[in-house]
Amino acid sequence: MRILFDKDEVRRICEEKRCAGFRIGFVPTMGALHEGHLSLVRRAAAQSGFVVVSIFVNPTQFGPGEDLNKYPRDLEGDSRLLESVGADIVYAPDKASVYPSGYATYVTVERLIEGLCGLSRPGHFRGVATIVAKLFNTVRPHVAVFGQKDAQQAAVIKRMVRDLDLDIAIDVGPIVREPDGLAMSSRNRYLDSEERSEAAILSRALREAETMVSSGVTDAHKIKAGVQEMINSMPLACIEYVEIVDREELFNVSDVSGGALLALAVRFGGTRLIDNTVLLPGKG
Amino acid sequence: MRILFDKDEVRRICEEKRCAGFRIGFVPTMGALHEGHLSLVRRAAAQSGFVVVSIFVNPTQFGPGEDLNKYPRDLEGDSRLLESVGADIVYAPDKASVYPSGYATYVTVERLIEGLCGLSRPGHFRGVATIVAKLFNTVRPHVAVFGQKDAQQAAVIKRMVRDLDLDIAIDVGPIVREPDGLAMSSRNRYLDSEERSEAAILSRALREAETMVSSGVTDAHKIKAGVQEMINSMPLACIEYVEIVDREELFNVSDVSGGALLALAVRFGGTRLIDNTVLLPGKG
Repeated sequence: MRILFDKDEVRRICEEKRCAGFRIGFVPTMGALHEGHLSLVRRAAAQSGFVVVSIFVNPTQFGPGEDLNKYPRDLEGDSRLLESVGADIVYAPDKASVYPSGYATYVTVERLIEGLCGLSRPGHFRGVATIVAKLFNTVRPHVAVFGQKDAQQAAVIKRMVRDLDLDIAIDVGPIVREPDGLAMSSRNRYLDSEERSEAAILSRALREAETMVSSGVTDAHKIKAGVQEMINSMPLACIEYVEIVDREELFNVSDVSGGALLALAVRFGGTRLIDNTVLLPGKG
Repeated sequence: MRILFDKDEVRRICEEKRCAGFRIGFVPTMGALHEGHLSLVRRAAAQSGFVVVSIFVNPTQFGPGEDLNKYPRDLEGDSRLLESVGADIVYAPDKASVYPSGYATYVTVERLIEGLCGLSRPGHFRGVATIVAKLFNTVRPHVAVFGQKDAQQAAVIKRMVRDLDLDIAIDVGPIVREPDGLAMSSRNRYLDSEERSEAAILSRALREAETMVSSGVTDAHKIKAGVQEMINSMPLACIEYVEIVDREELFNVSDVSGGALLALAVRFGGTRLIDNTVLLPGKG
């Protein structure tokens, strides 16, 4: 495995591999890797012959007051983990090479970015779509793997790839959870022990919603109310949103009979956590 | 030469040529081809072994009330011309395949789109950057050729290519003019004989500005005033703008000592014409 910092070198190697007939898999990350990321790299490795993982803490997807500066960085530790799961290249560009002086171009995906996390994080998905487009143009993967944990991000990237005629398959890997159900996240380490303990309510509330749907409830309002009530039973939890939306287009739905995404964002102290599940009647 | 309508077929052929070692040249057009376009295709052919020309009247770069519907279309005639100058593929997608239902993604280049044509054509350069990004992603050229006639467009595309890490050289071909100096344009055919005759003032005014600069004038205000006065001597001319700007970043400059772009847009009746020249002291 090689750790590369130079865009042109990554591009040249990937182009050689592509023309030599290798299928190229790609997983973009911000580092601070956990088992969730590693599961995505394993998925990429299972679907391709050459795996590139990028590590770049992308400033344009952080809002003012968000955790850009304290976001954990550990290239050495991350690289060891990536080697163990079959990455061939770690691409870790520096900020100045990604956003040189005079930078002016942004990719926006309308509509899908309006609700959910887009409401409290204006500009976030513009930053995400732009950096992912840039990384795609450097690596030119056949397949790129994203996590279902960031469901809105996955929907935005799928839409972008289709719309911009990028010839890239987008594969979405399932959420990986801690033993108590908490979705793995680089931000979980910000939680103190009390917050950490309460945060397990999120996945329990999602499981409860699945159970309601399995037992025949399809009214989105009722399902959301049940989820909100469970979360609000935790003294430190502060709900940002609990929404039930179309799985691809992310507009609000009032009934989950055709399947839907239940997504939530909840703050525990200064830490904002997201989680979600797909509700499929007849699934249970 | 082949005329293709299907994105995936164009992509497949270009990828094969690329991996076989061909250098791919690309000229995006809206059809209604004239000698200006053909000069760009010849430039592409001189720099590459496989030349793709797209013909697509892109609706997202037309504003309300602009000439989208009357814009001239003649695929057969255009194709004959393109074959004569060495095109290998004409790619002529239809609107529904370029902007399918649910389309939501746009590429914006900030700053450079604020002045000049961006003022009277809001959304125009977003439409241009987006369609060009899409075509680039399909063709994946090594070099793409644009005309200096659309100087702001060329600057926007150069910025986009650099910013989005597209590995494409942008080559800009000089303005091709009619015998009386009028810059060739698909829209010249909208002019009636009186307007057509008066429109020659634009290039004469640009030449006069070059002469002023050659004789030592560097004050942008003075040069613009001279140009405006000449154009205003024509009864049918209605100036939209005459500006002197930085050649790459397009911000207004007050002195042309370091070189500058003199650009103008003028209406004759219902027809909007643009033209420009690069002012280089010591050039004459």
